[in-house]
Parts: sequence; structure tokens; C-alpha cells
Amino acid sequence: MLSEGVILEEKEISQAVIGRLPRYFRYLGELKDEGVERISSQDLSELMKVTASQIRQDLNNFGGFGQQGYGYNVEYLYHEIGKILGLDRQHNFIIIGAGNLGRALGNYINFEKRGFIFRGMFDENPALIGSRIRGVKVMPMNEIEHFIRENDIDIAVLAIPKSGAVAVAEKLVRTGIHAIWNFAHVDLNVPEGIQVENVHLSDSLMKLSYNIRKAAPNGE
Amino acid sequence: MLSEGVILEEKEISQAVIGRLPRYFRYLGELKDEGVERISSQDLSELMKVTASQIRQDLNNFGGFGQQGYGYNVEYLYHEIGKILGLDRQHNFIIIGAGNLGRALGNYINFEKRGFIFRGMFDENPALIGSRIRGVKVMPMNEIEHFIRENDIDIAVLAIPKSGAVAVAEKLVRTGIHAIWNFAHVDLNVPEGIQVENVHLSDSLMKLSYNIRKAAPNGE
Repeated sequence: MLSEGVILEEKEISQAVIGRLPRYFRYLGELKDEGVERISSQDLSELMKVTASQIRQDLNNFGGFGQQGYGYNVEYLYHEIGKILGLDRQHNFIIIGAGNLGRALGNYINFEKRGFIFRGMFDENPALIGSRIRGVKVMPMNEIEHFIRENDIDIAVLAIPKSGAVAVAEKLVRTGIHAIWNFAHVDLNVPEGIQVENVHLSDSLMKLSYNIRKAAPNGE
Repeated sequence: MLSEGVILEEKEISQAVIGRLPRYFRYLGELKDEGVERISSQDLSELMKVTASQIRQDLNNFGGFGQQGYGYNVEYLYHEIGKILGLDRQHNFIIIGAGNLGRALGNYINFEKRGFIFRGMFDENPALIGSRIRGVKVMPMNEIEHFIRENDIDIAVLAIPKSGAVAVAEKLVRTGIHAIWNFAHVDLNVPEGIQVENVHLSDSLMKLSYNIRKAAPNGE
């Protein structure tokens, strides 16, 4: 991994703020693509439908990039947030599980634009081994450890069912992987220093179901 | 939709608490399947790796289900949380987009176990129309509105690229859909009363990238 810059004097930032940064990054990227050079926190607030005060508070966590009476420089802020998010580094990732979800993730070319490079795919189903997703070969599970070490892989994407996920995660930990992006519907207990980000789709669907019930308590 | 019970005297509950309920539901379901009848907040706390005080606070939002010296009745709490999450109702859903992601979502049989029934799939690609995912037919986009009205559909899953998502969401709103589960990487502006739950995969990956950078600031 290469880092082009070091963030100085970083405070402890809450996960809630960090969770909102990608959204700022997305909106600023769109503004940049539209040729917008600067934006006030008020205008950004209307666009993103969050309060201007929330925007100022969030961005102040990083020293604040705005200037009174000028607003935010879109391109500068976009790049700074990108750096904070670690997007100035290249990340090599593998996907474990070559089912529909794994293939969908392997086909997301947008990940590549952000520096996440899809390097390898693994599955235990012999029928899938040797097939290719965007030129990337599906390999047998027993080659994972060797492949991670030889190819400077820092992220493993777990796109397999819950039943096998814990054992695979333990194996990944032994290879020295830095991060797991976990789509299996189970919580992984990994040692400190290994980053896990969960995408629990069922949980998200249940949250939607809660909000449907709440909006129409009697099921009309 | 059918509701088997009405939740009485419900307070306004923060989205943070609601976001945690599916996880309680998942752990309680596993305990139930293992034949565990009751559990103390202390034991649940160790299992879930959250503080016992957080568990008590979260569950107190719903009147609290625990009894001093007894703990929680697993089966009762599981069913009560299920009701709160609206899982005692049946939800019919359609998927828009028959690509890898759409097909992955259509193949999740776990959704069905929770009362989310996969009814129809739509795509604009003529080559996909007529094919089937678990017996469910892929139909052309111009049949969406009629299908929603005729089949009591309450959730539409958007598994299409960002470019078409806003227009499709507007169309869905006109059909009277209750909820959109949005996988397109764009924020949808829908009228009040329509529930949207976003799964922004790129945002989740960026959060992971942030945590990798933070754990190894100089990119070792």
C-alpha cells in the first residue's frame, strides 16, 4: 500500500461521523464533476438534506475546510475527505464465494475507481473453479493463504453463507489480512487490529419492515 | 398485510436503537434454536459483546421484558422483538434489476423465513425477460405498475445502477408502494410516508478503508 499523505493531528472521531463521510465524498464528487468550484454549508445542507450546523460540526472534526464568506472549495474538500477515507492508497481485495453476491461485487467497476482492485476469487464448488469474473480467476479455497501472501491482499470480502464464515474468517486472520468486508449473517470475532465491516442485509430489511409497521400500525 | 398484534403505548424510539433490534432478534433466534429458555442480561451481554446496561436500556424502550433475578425469557423476547420489527406480517416484494445483485437477493431464502415473499422481478434487458429466479419470472419494466397493484406488493428492491434509479423510484411512488430497499448509489427523495432503507455498498467499503488507514497510518 502506498500513502501519498499523512493526516496530521487527528482526533478520535466517532464512528457516526465516519459513517457520514462517504456521503459527503459522494456529493462533493458529483459537484466536482458538474464543475462546481465552491459551495456554502447552507447550499450543501439543502442538497444533502442535513442541517448546515451538522455539516460544519462534522467537517470541523478534521480541522474544518471552510472559510467564512467563501464556503467550501469543492475539489480541495473532496480530495481531503478522500485522503481521510484512505482512498489515496490502493487496496487489493479478494472475494470469497463465487455465487451471485460474490459475482455482483466482483463486477462493481466503481470500486476500482476508488482504488479497490479486485485480484482474486475463491470458492469451494469445483464447478466454478477456473471460471472468470472480469478476467479474475475463481480459485480453490486451499489456495487462499498463499494467494494473500503473494499478492499483497489487504481486504477479503466474505460472500459466503453464515455456516462457513467463522472458519474462513479464522483462516484469513492467520494469513495476516488487514480487513474483512463481511456479508455473512454472523458476527466475526477477530483479534484487535483487524478491521471488520459488516453488511447484514437481513438486518437492513428488518429495519425497513419496522418502519413500514410504524407508518401503518394496523397494516393498511 | 396481516398484523397479528398491535404494539401498545409505543414511544418514539431512536433509529440507533431500531438499528440494533435485528441483532437482538438474530441472537435470540439462535438461542431459541439451541433450546435456551432464559438468559440474563449479563450472559446476553457477553454473547453479543455489548454492555448489559446497553441491553437493558435498549429493551426498556419497549417496556422491558426482563424480570429481576430471572433474566429474559428467550422465546417470549424473540417473538416480541419480531412483532416490533413487523415480522408477524407478510411482506410481498419485487426486485427491479435482474443482474447479479438482483439475482443474489432473489435467491436469499432466509428472507422468506422472516415473512418477506419474493413475487416478481423486472428488468429492461430483453434477453433476461422470461427467465426465472426460484420460479419467479423476470418481466419487462412497463409491467411494474400493474403488477404492484394486482399483487399487493409493499416493498420494491432497487438493484439497478444509479443512473436509472431516481426515475424508477418516482414511478414506484406513483404506484403507491410502501417501501423501497435501495441498493442504487444515490439518495432517493420520496414523499413522507414512503419508507426508504439504503444499502450503499461503496459507503461501507470506504468506512472499512478509513479504519484500515487509521490502524496503519503509514500504510505498512
